[in-house]
Amino acid sequence: MKKYQLMAPGPTPVPSQVLLAMAQPMIHHRTPEYDALFVEVRAGLKRLFQTTQDVITLTCSGTGAMEAAVANTLSAGDRVAVVWAGKFAERWIEIAKVYGVDVLELRAPFGETVEPARVAEALAREPRIKAVLAQHSETSTGVLHDVRAYAEATRRTDAILIVDAVSSLGIADLPMDAWGVDVVVAGSQKGLMLPPGLAFCALSEKAWAKARTSRLPRYYFDLAEERKYAARNEARFTPAVSIVVGLREVIKMLEAEGLANVFQRHDRLARATRAGAEALGLTLFAKATPSPALTAIAAPDGIDGEKIVAAYAEAHNITIAGGQGEMKGQLFRLGHMGYATEVDVIIALSALEQVLADFGLPVDFGSGVRAAQKVFVEKS
Amino acid sequence: MKKYQLMAPGPTPVPSQVLLAMAQPMIHHRTPEYDALFVEVRAGLKRLFQTTQDVITLTCSGTGAMEAAVANTLSAGDRVAVVWAGKFAERWIEIAKVYGVDVLELRAPFGETVEPARVAEALAREPRIKAVLAQHSETSTGVLHDVRAYAEATRRTDAILIVDAVSSLGIADLPMDAWGVDVVVAGSQKGLMLPPGLAFCALSEKAWAKARTSRLPRYYFDLAEERKYAARNEARFTPAVSIVVGLREVIKMLEAEGLANVFQRHDRLARATRAGAEALGLTLFAKATPSPALTAIAAPDGIDGEKIVAAYAEAHNITIAGGQGEMKGQLFRLGHMGYATEVDVIIALSALEQVLADFGLPVDFGSGVRAAQKVFVEKS
Repeated sequence: MKKYQLMAPGPTPVPSQVLLAMAQPMIHHRTPEYDALFVEVRAGLKRLFQTTQDVITLTCSGTGAMEAAVANTLSAGDRVAVVWAGKFAERWIEIAKVYGVDVLELRAPFGETVEPARVAEALAREPRIKAVLAQHSETSTGVLHDVRAYAEATRRTDAILIVDAVSSLGIADLPMDAWGVDVVVAGSQKGLMLPPGLAFCALSEKAWAKARTSRLPRYYFDLAEERKYAARNEARFTPAVSIVVGLREVIKMLEAEGLANVFQRHDRLARATRAGAEALGLTLFAKATPSPALTAIAAPDGIDGEKIVAAYAEAHNITIAGGQGEMKGQLFRLGHMGYATEVDVIIALSALEQVLADFGLPVDFGSGVRAAQKVFVEKS
Repeated sequence: MKKYQLMAPGPTPVPSQVLLAMAQPMIHHRTPEYDALFVEVRAGLKRLFQTTQDVITLTCSGTGAMEAAVANTLSAGDRVAVVWAGKFAERWIEIAKVYGVDVLELRAPFGETVEPARVAEALAREPRIKAVLAQHSETSTGVLHDVRAYAEATRRTDAILIVDAVSSLGIADLPMDAWGVDVVVAGSQKGLMLPPGLAFCALSEKAWAKARTSRLPRYYFDLAEERKYAARNEARFTPAVSIVVGLREVIKMLEAEGLANVFQRHDRLARATRAGAEALGLTLFAKATPSPALTAIAAPDGIDGEKIVAAYAEAHNITIAGGQGEMKGQLFRLGHMGYATEVDVIIALSALEQVLADFGLPVDFGSGVRAAQKVFVEKS
């Protein structure tokens, strides 16, 4: 017997108490029971997003909410700047192209970040830029972009800042209102510890103003229409009821721990994972600020990253992730987000030591684990 | 204690064994485990849709799949005919308008149907009509439209027939290929007995050909892209994994019963419900062929339909549904689809007798139940 461990950067494990809450009998979404549930969830989402704005709940994956962010705030022919340093940035570009939105690519090599000064310069050079699109945590490279500084650049202009926080909400601090982020997009299956199927989109007043003049077609993803229903505490279309039920439990768990502690926990898990990997002589893929959600590690010379992923699965029953797109084979990614604690890091690093040894690399057994433990015993 | 009964026309109750299957630990969607699951589910969906085509699975509610059907097969300025005899037909019209698709309204009073001859005439009169959009079961009125005859009209032309089967798939027979229906849209939360959050869209070769020339923008709902991933047995974006796990169980249940028996069960439940309502002196809202998914009953003179819904909830802990839009107050709707059997009809009718008596109407207690029992004891 090998206990199954889901350690990919999303979907992430769902706590048993949440799974069981979702296994309760189905309720209808136009009833007093759902009404009470949705009031509670909507209030909790505002606290998680650190905003006074309504957080719009959509039944879709995070990509659907990314599309909603574009389709509701822009028009064909608009110019936008995309912070492009990973695969998920390419998703912004693909969505923009589908809608005839013109993209200025602010590119950096994968594993690096785009300096905020470049964003500010682009906005100054091209005042017609309507929006800056970025990831907070770029899940493909394990880099955390400096969204706070991007917001400082956009808030001085007429442009809005649209942030994919799919792998940062409930993981890294992202005070939407305080930082002046205009659109925050998130999903259910990362920091929120839920099954995939719900996504979220919160808009600032500046972004809602753009929504009033945006001319792109949208129906299922029409955020202004959804907001009208939310004002009556309703979902416009049949929502993913069971995941909303789970969300209530997750909000309770996160708030019992305290948001600041949640962020600190992720930071410690990430630091411990990085310390463990480096103690084993491995190189982190992220050259810029690493994300607290996951750690991307360069595959050792001569070993295909996909083979490391396969070895984790076959020898240890652990699901991790490899590289995406052109990064395939170059790296492997360990998730430590959502329902993740110290034991998960120990498991991941202990298995890593064994995997590396199985590939014939010299390994000082316990050295990766020890490096992580040292992080854990530090006073936080 | 009053046992809770969900008897609305969707979401419908989820069998406990399915709830518990979905409560299993989360798995990742790019693993051999998901691969095996998705192979099984995709094959099962083809059998449920009675098609050799791939059934595209989307993470959204049924409305998202309706939008996908339009956005993938049409272009701005195209002319379509909409069979409009209920609230869900209005959803087709709203979606068409958002995308600049021009609508010929084939209207009938709510509770009635649009005769197939009118569809054929419209196609003959306006050869530029690219598509006919209809509901199979119109959930707002409880009418089953004659989709088979609509398909006979469209298959002789270049137009495609797009059918919302959200409340008919797995409930009423709809052999997509045999009848020549070009697009079938369905959701997880009706006949498929699952929580809401998954939707489906199957296209005929004729519809896929239209998709190749369609110029409407779509990204999350791009069916041709999704089909490419399906050909590799993958979901393009993170799918609602837990509902897909539930779907495997549901397919097993439906196939153990046998599709023909499933349709027959729904037909018997519907006939029994109608017989019970009529025995109580009530009038069915549907003047045309009634849907086997639900029974819409006109509110008795002087009683607001919403009050009947409230009485069911308050006195009996049963969720039913009222009228939608301009039908609000005029009717109430009893669902008997998905995980529904004879006992549910007996419960619904027994409660109905008590509700009517509470409103001061003369009721021969047991007469509605008796009428249903007579249907149940008939040789089927």
